[in-house]
Amino acid sequence: MINLASDNVVGASRPVLETLLKANDGAAMPYGTDSWTADATAMLAKVFEHEVHNFMVATGTGANALALAALTPPWGAVFCHAESHVMDDECGAPEMFTDGAKIVGVPGVNGKMTPAAVEAQLERFAKGVVKSVQPAALSISQVTEAGTVYTLDEIRALVAVAKKHGLKTHLDGARFTNAMLALGCTAAEMTWKIGIDVVTFGASKNGCLACEAIIFFDAALAENFQYRRKRGGHTLSKGRLLGAQMVGYLENDHWIANAKHANAMAQTLASGLRTIPGARLPWPVDANEVFVVVPQSAKKALDEAHIRAAPWSSNCVPDGFTIGADEAFLRFVTSFATQPSEIEAVIATLSGRRAAAE
Amino acid sequence: MINLASDNVVGASRPVLETLLKANDGAAMPYGTDSWTADATAMLAKVFEHEVHNFMVATGTGANALALAALTPPWGAVFCHAESHVMDDECGAPEMFTDGAKIVGVPGVNGKMTPAAVEAQLERFAKGVVKSVQPAALSISQVTEAGTVYTLDEIRALVAVAKKHGLKTHLDGARFTNAMLALGCTAAEMTWKIGIDVVTFGASKNGCLACEAIIFFDAALAENFQYRRKRGGHTLSKGRLLGAQMVGYLENDHWIANAKHANAMAQTLASGLRTIPGARLPWPVDANEVFVVVPQSAKKALDEAHIRAAPWSSNCVPDGFTIGADEAFLRFVTSFATQPSEIEAVIATLSGRRAAAE
Amino acid sequence: MINLASDNVVGASRPVLETLLKANDGAAMPYGTDSWTADATAMLAKVFEHEVHNFMVATGTGANALALAALTPPWGAVFCHAESHVMDDECGAPEMFTDGAKIVGVPGVNGKMTPAAVEAQLERFAKGVVKSVQPAALSISQVTEAGTVYTLDEIRALVAVAKKHGLKTHLDGARFTNAMLALGCTAAEMTWKIGIDVVTFGASKNGCLACEAIIFFDAALAENFQYRRKRGGHTLSKGRLLGAQMVGYLENDHWIANAKHANAMAQTLASGLRTIPGARLPWPVDANEVFVVVPQSAKKALDEAHIRAAPWSSNCVPDGFTIGADEAFLRFVTSFATQPSEIEAVIATLSGRRAAAE
Amino acid sequence: MINLASDNVVGASRPVLETLLKANDGAAMPYGTDSWTADATAMLAKVFEHEVHNFMVATGTGANALALAALTPPWGAVFCHAESHVMDDECGAPEMFTDGAKIVGVPGVNGKMTPAAVEAQLERFAKGVVKSVQPAALSISQVTEAGTVYTLDEIRALVAVAKKHGLKTHLDGARFTNAMLALGCTAAEMTWKIGIDVVTFGASKNGCLACEAIIFFDAALAENFQYRRKRGGHTLSKGRLLGAQMVGYLENDHWIANAKHANAMAQTLASGLRTIPGARLPWPVDANEVFVVVPQSAKKALDEAHIRAAPWSSNCVPDGFTIGADEAFLRFVTSFATQPSEIEAVIATLSGRRAAAE
Repeated sequence: MINLASDNVVGASRPVLETLLKANDGAAMPYGTDSWTADATAMLAKVFEHEVHNFMVATGTGANALALAALTPPWGAVFCHAESHVMDDECGAPEMFTDGAKIVGVPGVNGKMTPAAVEAQLERFAKGVVKSVQPAALSISQVTEAGTVYTLDEIRALVAVAKKHGLKTHLDGARFTNAMLALGCTAAEMTWKIGIDVVTFGASKNGCLACEAIIFFDAALAENFQYRRKRGGHTLSKGRLLGAQMVGYLENDHWIANAKHANAMAQTLASGLRTIPGARLPWPVDANEVFVVVPQSAKKALDEAHIRAAPWSSNCVPDGFTIGADEAFLRFVTSFATQPSEIEAVIATLSGRRAAAE
Repeated sequence: MINLASDNVVGASRPVLETLLKANDGAAMPYGTDSWTADATAMLAKVFEHEVHNFMVATGTGANALALAALTPPWGAVFCHAESHVMDDECGAPEMFTDGAKIVGVPGVNGKMTPAAVEAQLERFAKGVVKSVQPAALSISQVTEAGTVYTLDEIRALVAVAKKHGLKTHLDGARFTNAMLALGCTAAEMTWKIGIDVVTFGASKNGCLACEAIIFFDAALAENFQYRRKRGGHTLSKGRLLGAQMVGYLENDHWIANAKHANAMAQTLASGLRTIPGARLPWPVDANEVFVVVPQSAKKALDEAHIRAAPWSSNCVPDGFTIGADEAFLRFVTSFATQPSEIEAVIATLSGRRAAAE
Repeated sequence: MINLASDNVVGASRPVLETLLKANDGAAMPYGTDSWTADATAMLAKVFEHEVHNFMVATGTGANALALAALTPPWGAVFCHAESHVMDDECGAPEMFTDGAKIVGVPGVNGKMTPAAVEAQLERFAKGVVKSVQPAALSISQVTEAGTVYTLDEIRALVAVAKKHGLKTHLDGARFTNAMLALGCTAAEMTWKIGIDVVTFGASKNGCLACEAIIFFDAALAENFQYRRKRGGHTLSKGRLLGAQMVGYLENDHWIANAKHANAMAQTLASGLRTIPGARLPWPVDANEVFVVVPQSAKKALDEAHIRAAPWSSNCVPDGFTIGADEAFLRFVTSFATQPSEIEAVIATLSGRRAAAE
Repeated sequence: MINLASDNVVGASRPVLETLLKANDGAAMPYGTDSWTADATAMLAKVFEHEVHNFMVATGTGANALALAALTPPWGAVFCHAESHVMDDECGAPEMFTDGAKIVGVPGVNGKMTPAAVEAQLERFAKGVVKSVQPAALSISQVTEAGTVYTLDEIRALVAVAKKHGLKTHLDGARFTNAMLALGCTAAEMTWKIGIDVVTFGASKNGCLACEAIIFFDAALAENFQYRRKRGGHTLSKGRLLGAQMVGYLENDHWIANAKHANAMAQTLASGLRTIPGARLPWPVDANEVFVVVPQSAKKALDEAHIRAAPWSSNCVPDGFTIGADEAFLRFVTSFATQPSEIEAVIATLSGRRAAAE
């Protein structure tokens, strides 16, 4: 079976696992006061070229919801893409952790918000008007839900709108490293250097088992965050589990290597898909996600070959891109563990070569 | 350094770690739909001799807060010991997850609630009186915060009060196995057979890294619980991390062996402490926690020997048990990893023998 | 000064006030257990031709937020028009009272949702998919935010979609009576007879000072609602204030007379506006709200004449209806207290006649 | 029937009602931007001899819950007397509005907290310890639940403890005026002059129908409070209802006269009760509440005479004050409307004189 439905279907990568094993021995202080966590924080400060206030948790949903809670009062509004993870895929966690803030979807093609679209939504919620929730934060998914990556200029423009209206900014970096490599920039350049206030630095999808860092660059925003994390039940007692994963993830540029591989596999897959008759890619392939529309027959061939992709739907495909009743919309996600042979098998199956061969 | 401040200062035990390694390879479905999670649930059903609705999470705070949220409406009251973990040690997580239910402390010596004390608190909150929060659940810590273990009859009597008043019952089993072994009973006998509705089955302190199972015996109570867990950010994407830990924990009665060792080490420690001049134990040592009052000089000796216990305070010591200004109140917790030599070192240090020897 | 900005700028109508005076004397039991409240409930049961579970509160925001909280779990989704009051004008009260449910806007021209538009939003939130909030309720504003009134068939069609997907239904009747008269139907026909589960029966805008009834037709839905109201701080201690207002409001068909007058005044105003050069009405005038686009010069004339309308904006005007930079979009709302002379003054001012006359 | 069960069983006093009538005519801006509300605020500033940030609402529960929400984060703890209204009588509203803060009861005889008792509770929740909710506010009921009134020195001592630990202070003045008159001090002396940060200034029980003012003396604390009130559904659209009541209440020292009468009636009642054989008063009668234990036979006589008092229970009676099985514990509350003849009737009935006379 080949499973490319998501990058969360694989386990941890070897160096992460080995660091975890190494960290397992002996006594360590609990609740994130251990040396592994301290080391992870120090390494993140190097990665971001900035002092960081680092809070690690085991889930991306927890990380995003907690991060947003630090940026908005309960009567605030958080703006994000209409199909973003915090809007559609977290079962209301942002509403829960913010104690009821309004999560406002901003429509936009290719998974991206534009400054004008954000402005249009901001107009609905007037500052100082008591009947209206108060604009508080902008959350940007990088990589987006469409697998695309905002350019630094695109983020700069969004942040400019946010700052103009007094909003704090959050970067949902569940696939942070894939985006960073796609842009060829540094972690600093993609975050605080262009005005991002808090980052969800995802590691689970790119080599860890369960580790996401919520990273603040400003001590004031991080004040009291430890209480938020604890009352959310997101402070692990054996904190070394998180610290060690992050250390193993960052050491020797392992995180970079993992994401580089995943991105390359996605390009190989995309190139192959473009050769398949009837296959159409709605969006650019910027990182490690490949979305494609194929004939239902091709989908059937995948099923029969036990190749798994995720069925998809979206309202942010380009104008005019429609999906026929005899077509299937699929998402493939590559990871550090994806093998070239798996990509080949996908392409062979879709092109009809493989079934014939077998 | 010898650290007996808690049973969360050690890593995972070997079989748990090895199962985790084994589970790491290959693709697995995410969000707890993997085979390891399924196996864990099947094993828990055997352990509890009952169909179980099993929801695993990474933290005890998350587990308790989610479990209570399933038992009370926001206008409900949850009764628990005045010094219990859900009252004092979770930074308000139960209030957060229950959307604002009132957590009501029931005083009681030796960490135990009595039926009469629960009744007295229930009288404060009259059923059907609209100004009053409505009694909804009783949460029983087993092992208690005083390291004591309720007898089955004691639990039966508390459950009887609960049922009489229409309350659901929760067992906070952060140290479930230690209590079960102390009683020499089965998991079933300590839970559903005596009327417990939902259990926090703790594994992190007894061999896992981060794994607690919230176990329901009644499908109706578990309905919608998956949404609660997800919106709390407690559904791990790589769910095998939890499933594999639990499998490794339960296989070959490993959980039993771990707790048996921990309990035995506690008895050894307690016996040794009773020989120390000036040392007084406020509570029976039923499981793997040993509380003791020692002269400050003895405490100083521990510090100098780099032996760590947790400083303690409590309002539920027996009548007449007072602590002098020249005394220190300490908690020692033994675990699967505690070595007899560590216990010996503690006793030697406290008795003055060790410092002399060195 | 003539103030037609809203129907909440006037006081109480005479019969309501007089009943309040009458109810003021003597002792009455508190918290809604008084005889005036009982009488109000009995009268509402007659009005609705059905047993009602009646909970009165002082504000429309409180009424709507509480009603929705009875229909959705915290992980649920409530669907409503994208510009509805619960979405835009209650500062997040629905999110607060539902403990964080997602309020999902359904776009639709003329302030109306269509069944197809509701279905389209429902597709985003799949039943049983754990990452998704779960569809729970449909809230229909009648009168809509555009001043239009759904026909009974239109409501029936929306309710059919709701029921097909297992949603409960709420009617936000802040201007209930105005809508009912517009349709020429009974209160029963506009609610439970076509599948509405809970109604916010607004009285404040149509003659009361502060009185809205949350009305359930099903005892099961109303169970525990008294606790919700109390913990929301919406149970008045001197409950007769609410009971007496409602009695005075309903007695002698006073509520009908008030709304009939308001609706008639709106028609007069609309007719007059249609004679004004450059004035354009985006929406049909179904009840007591009149929206109009006028030249900025006309708006200036109103200001100078101390005639107040509410500046407006909306995304649900008909296709092709655009507003020029030299135009103003205004809302007029008539009430039981609106005088024909006020309408005449508005029209005279806008037509330029009045300024000349003065 | 004579109803002295509470001071919320009577309607509004005449001047309040007349001001309401006067305010009813004409148009007024909504949501508290009307002139009556502005006048009320100006009058309150005079009463308190200080700039005030005044937010009026219709219920005491709403007022208290909102006030506390301004003083504590969700992970905070609010300390109050163990039997206070915010603890026992608001169905969890404080927990709801604070988004889950912990309300911690401080035991204390005669309804009063002592500084030592507050300190003892504060020790349970250590500042900076992440597992613990963080001490945030102290709420003082004045009049207390036992009908007693803190002296200014007693409040000063409590506030000193609060400030030492960084807590904000709230005065629950549901019976503010009764307490103020008991002390013979000014409103300023009982509040900001001794360190109170926010006051619930109750008017409903002392002459209004539904009006409580939440009063801040510090603009920083009041920042954003308008959003809290609105999302709680506590911003009345016809805000003049609140403004006019408060104006009528304060004008011509009407509030003082009302409370003076109520307090005097309570003294008359208490004097009478002290002459009744077998009647015992557990607490001093400081304001307008009189608590008494009488023989069951006397209680029966009251019932038969259709005289209503509230059955009571309390854990804060003085040591040694016990209530026999053949006794009844009752609360009488006098108000502006209480007639001397009613007091006489109570005493006559209890002494057996009245029944004989009839």
